[in-house]
Amino acid sequence: GETIRATLFPGDGIGPEIAESVKQVFNVAGVPIEWEEHYVGTEVDPRTESFLTWESLESVRRNKVGLKGPMATPIGKGHRSLNLTLRKELGLYANVRPCNSLPGYKTRYDDVNLVTIRENTEGEYSGLEHQVVRGVVESLKIITRQASLRVAEYAFHYAKANGRERVSAIHKANIMRKTDGLFLKCCREIAEKYPEIQYEEVIIDNCCMTLVKNPGLFDVLVMPNLYGDIISDLCAGLIGGLGLTPSCNIGEGGICLAEAVHGSAPDIAGMNLANPTALMLSAVMMLRHLQFNDQADRIHNAILKTIAEGKFRTADLGGKASTSEFTNAVCDHI
Amino acid sequence: GETIRATLFPGDGIGPEIAESVKQVFNVAGVPIEWEEHYVGTEVDPRTESFLTWESLESVRRNKVGLKGPMATPIGKGHRSLNLTLRKELGLYANVRPCNSLPGYKTRYDDVNLVTIRENTEGEYSGLEHQVVRGVVESLKIITRQASLRVAEYAFHYAKANGRERVSAIHKANIMRKTDGLFLKCCREIAEKYPEIQYEEVIIDNCCMTLVKNPGLFDVLVMPNLYGDIISDLCAGLIGGLGLTPSCNIGEGGICLAEAVHGSAPDIAGMNLANPTALMLSAVMMLRHLQFNDQADRIHNAILKTIAEGKFRTADLGGKASTSEFTNAVCDHI
Ligand SMILES: CC(C)[C@H](C(=O)O)[C@@H](O)C(=O)O
Ligand SMILES: CC(C)[C@H](C(=O)O)[C@@H](O)C(=O)O
Repeated sequence: GETIRATLFPGDGIGPEIAESVKQVFNVAGVPIEWEEHYVGTEVDPRTESFLTWESLESVRRNKVGLKGPMATPIGKGHRSLNLTLRKELGLYANVRPCNSLPGYKTRYDDVNLVTIRENTEGEYSGLEHQVVRGVVESLKIITRQASLRVAEYAFHYAKANGRERVSAIHKANIMRKTDGLFLKCCREIAEKYPEIQYEEVIIDNCCMTLVKNPGLFDVLVMPNLYGDIISDLCAGLIGGLGLTPSCNIGEGGICLAEAVHGSAPDIAGMNLANPTALMLSAVMMLRHLQFNDQADRIHNAILKTIAEGKFRTADLGGKASTSEFTNAVCDHI
Repeated sequence: GETIRATLFPGDGIGPEIAESVKQVFNVAGVPIEWEEHYVGTEVDPRTESFLTWESLESVRRNKVGLKGPMATPIGKGHRSLNLTLRKELGLYANVRPCNSLPGYKTRYDDVNLVTIRENTEGEYSGLEHQVVRGVVESLKIITRQASLRVAEYAFHYAKANGRERVSAIHKANIMRKTDGLFLKCCREIAEKYPEIQYEEVIIDNCCMTLVKNPGLFDVLVMPNLYGDIISDLCAGLIGGLGLTPSCNIGEGGICLAEAVHGSAPDIAGMNLANPTALMLSAVMMLRHLQFNDQADRIHNAILKTIAEGKFRTADLGGKASTSEFTNAVCDHI
């Protein structure tokens, strides 16, 4: 087989260490990927208005596939959030987060097996806000037919391709009749095209209550931006937190940018203490996107086995292993 | 002591039955309250634009205290949601929901002891929405200094009066810098006036993740309307659902309208199967507001004891008791 070029953003803080873990694991599994590494800059690039350079974005546009570690937006003026810049510049319209209970890692829940699909470009994240008069401010939530159809189409496509049975659209259309109403209308239109996939609509407050009582009732969830932000983190909490949950972003022109959504943990950066699980699992999502299913399965199983055995857990999971001990254990299992 | 007049909205569906339970319990505990009952109308009252009559609202304005069962907004045109009408007409600016694990009723969590305080009049519930061009709709989230200060003041006042230690303001000001930013600014201003109460700010996605991992970390939470809608239901889920959680609304001019926030359950209406716990616990909140602390304590303890014993649980809690069997058991414990 040929070698695939993929962009790697190791990111800040613990990012470079956990990116090293992924490279090591990919080597052992014989993944034919050549990385193009790009680091967060030290000066604002005027073309992106952020510390992310234009060249690094070009790399993803060219390769159409990439992996991203945590990026902390430096404090100060004159630049945009790095995460939002990526979403905007690359048209990352769907954030996909599978959320599965990890065998052997005990939380209050053992039957979580769902996927959240978040609209990632508009809604409450429009950035349109202003003061109306002193003491009165407003912000605009924008819902478009185009973005709603696109994310709904992706959700149903995902459900079908992954043998899922049901898509639940999450909303508050009883209050936001027009915006969330349009979102639902688009979901219904797409649902018609997938008669083999069940479709339901769930109000967000009720959804959150059901998630904490009985998450096993959900399968694939699709929703506007802010609801996705909230619910995907809630779901991560059910299985142990952001250190354990993979994510990937689907963008315009078929881009797939896998991403660990946890923070950059500057307090333990460089200390060989970070948990590389979320980035490894995100890398597995990237491999599946590339249809490297054999390597994806082997790496995925090795990660699950290492966590289940419990001998080499990192500190965030209550263990004593270093990043490299955990990574070596995963490599041994491949 | 004198007799207090209070408004009672039994509501729809199971409302009248569970309101009967409250009356029975109040009688047994010797609560000196005389009810003014008002039912949801069958025709739209033009002054309220809803099935709620103007007289019923006048009753609450006059008595300043009331209890409300579930109201289902009938489907059709020409009227507003009953719940939203109440909030608007009575200026119900804070929705207060204590959420405590019930001893003896097992869920995945046994250490929940928190209170959510929701801004109840503005934010995402402005009702301001429109189509910009075809396929593009927007809705306005409105945050005002006045409403934010008012709910923040109530939250700190509540914390102090109830021996609570910390108030957490929940927000997404990293994205909605102006609207949620103003909300936080107002919370900070009020926090200054209460140096004995700790104050922190928590981003909503992180808050939801922490709530499902470790709800014991929270004490009093205050937040804009939609976040309150979501988080209060999430919290109810932690302890078993809306059938078990009381709520009360604080309104302009010192109004206190206690409310069961679950649905009207038309499928079991009139069958003597409904669980009156949420309405009873809401009635207890009303009694505490009236400083009928002795009766409040006796009724509260009787409810907790009945649920803990487990002999007379209703079907929603996995038991076989009827509404009246449960109610009689509570009365026996008073
Ligand atoms: C960091 C923040 C801007 C971001 C968001 O709100 O989308 C984060 O919470 C996420 O989910 O990726
Ligand atoms: C019925 C609905 C309008 C209401 C709301 O969204 O506020 C409900 O969810 C609540 O929390 O009381």
